[in-house]
Amino acid sequence: MKRALPIAILASLVPALAAAAPFPSPDAVLAGAPASDWQTLDPADTLYMDLPAGRVVILLAPGFAPKTIANIKALTREKYFDDASLLRSQDNYVVQWSQENKERKAAKAALKGFVEFDRPASSSLVRLPDHDTYAAQTGFDGNFPAGSDGKREWLLHCYGMVGAGRDNAADSGSGVELYAVTGQSPRQLDRNITLVGRVLKGMELLSAIPRGPAPMGFYADPKLRTPIVSIRRVSDVPAAERTPIQVLRTDSKTFADTVEARRNRVDDFYKRPAGHIDLCNIPVPVR
Amino acid sequence: MKRALPIAILASLVPALAAAAPFPSPDAVLAGAPASDWQTLDPADTLYMDLPAGRVVILLAPGFAPKTIANIKALTREKYFDDASLLRSQDNYVVQWSQENKERKAAKAALKGFVEFDRPASSSLVRLPDHDTYAAQTGFDGNFPAGSDGKREWLLHCYGMVGAGRDNAADSGSGVELYAVTGQSPRQLDRNITLVGRVLKGMELLSAIPRGPAPMGFYADPKLRTPIVSIRRVSDVPAAERTPIQVLRTDSKTFADTVEARRNRVDDFYKRPAGHIDLCNIPVPVR
Repeated sequence: MKRALPIAILASLVPALAAAAPFPSPDAVLAGAPASDWQTLDPADTLYMDLPAGRVVILLAPGFAPKTIANIKALTREKYFDDASLLRSQDNYVVQWSQENKERKAAKAALKGFVEFDRPASSSLVRLPDHDTYAAQTGFDGNFPAGSDGKREWLLHCYGMVGAGRDNAADSGSGVELYAVTGQSPRQLDRNITLVGRVLKGMELLSAIPRGPAPMGFYADPKLRTPIVSIRRVSDVPAAERTPIQVLRTDSKTFADTVEARRNRVDDFYKRPAGHIDLCNIPVPVR
Repeated sequence: MKRALPIAILASLVPALAAAAPFPSPDAVLAGAPASDWQTLDPADTLYMDLPAGRVVILLAPGFAPKTIANIKALTREKYFDDASLLRSQDNYVVQWSQENKERKAAKAALKGFVEFDRPASSSLVRLPDHDTYAAQTGFDGNFPAGSDGKREWLLHCYGMVGAGRDNAADSGSGVELYAVTGQSPRQLDRNITLVGRVLKGMELLSAIPRGPAPMGFYADPKLRTPIVSIRRVSDVPAAERTPIQVLRTDSKTFADTVEARRNRVDDFYKRPAGHIDLCNIPVPVR
């Protein structure tokens, strides 16, 4: 929205000045983070989805969807997603991908017959003070946005979250078909489908592809589909081909301070700090 | 998310079957709308933004931002936006456009020196029962998502909303530079910037352009910018060149029923109706 000088960037160049304000900018907070607040990803729980235009990095959440993720890992191991494609891009909703090649499809190792929409509530949820329209409580659990009713806990359909497509049967989502949220959080899907992780880098490679012309954003014409070169677990990729990336710990003081700075934007641009924030408006910083 | 058969489409093909459910699907509700619930747009308050790839239809909200919109109308009349361009696309945030040609820029008719972030509260707000994280009350006012604290009322930064970019000074947004929301609703901007309307059709032409590689999604290289052919008021466009479009009245029973159907999705796919909805998750139906 800023017309000329990007204030967020300005603030990060002069952290001393920004820090003098009652609420420093999120970027200024981030610039002061100790190295220990930055977490290196576990290569066994991180995926590279390589597209012709570049690499998408997806962090998996095995604590929430262990069986679906075991399937996804097995599938990547047998190169199931090589030459798969983005089958669907529906505006303000999701992009979805799977393998359409019949031979590969037949070879899949995925098991079915389980439901991982939620799990028992956990004390590891770092709670947000703000009221949420959908869940009694929201917060971050590990690297992921989550909701809780005190008994059960579940991942939220925020922008960039990745889930396992399914048919009508609740237990029909195995991980052979995946989707990423590309618009306003479709929170009505929470606890109705299994979320498996989050895009940490390269989201713009999924969100900016042309929308499919058929209903629900499908590409009826296979020629319109964006090909997927491969999906690999980072632990299966040679060290020299890996993309260095770190994510800020959501249980760190730095993260709490960036959230507070976002709840109360006080800088030359903002005239009225919101005082609240929707969990899905909080990015987890990556570097 | 559905893997094979699109259930939303299925429901629209068999409305009788869907209507037998306790909560019919949003599409089934819509199929039963009387003609009087559909509103033809006022050509004086509707813009066509023509891009090489197609037409974007924007409905203006003069009841919320009369001065900014008077400027925009004057600017379109003098063809100010002809050969303008999309200057910025920041992932999960906004696409922004303005005129960079110096001669045209100098000729602009826009007045400055006013602030239209909100207006007095209005009885025309059709209230949503659900709690919102940011505003005491939300609902639809005319064709637009709005918030209220009982004294003031303002438009919300939902997906597809269009606003007037500004510099740091609150009164520096005149309408010469505009943006549209392309990601999770950046509600922290509510009451911090003037919203002027909403994209009703063609949003995918704005949301799917490649993100700008420079900070904040700017295209430092002018060759990367998507050109704008023109922006015109529909009333200035010959009848033969107009795009027929109607929008559902938000004060109609049909609209209330579609909202209820979205709050409680009960069909073969949804296993747990949310029971609530965020205002920004409610599309205003267009045909």
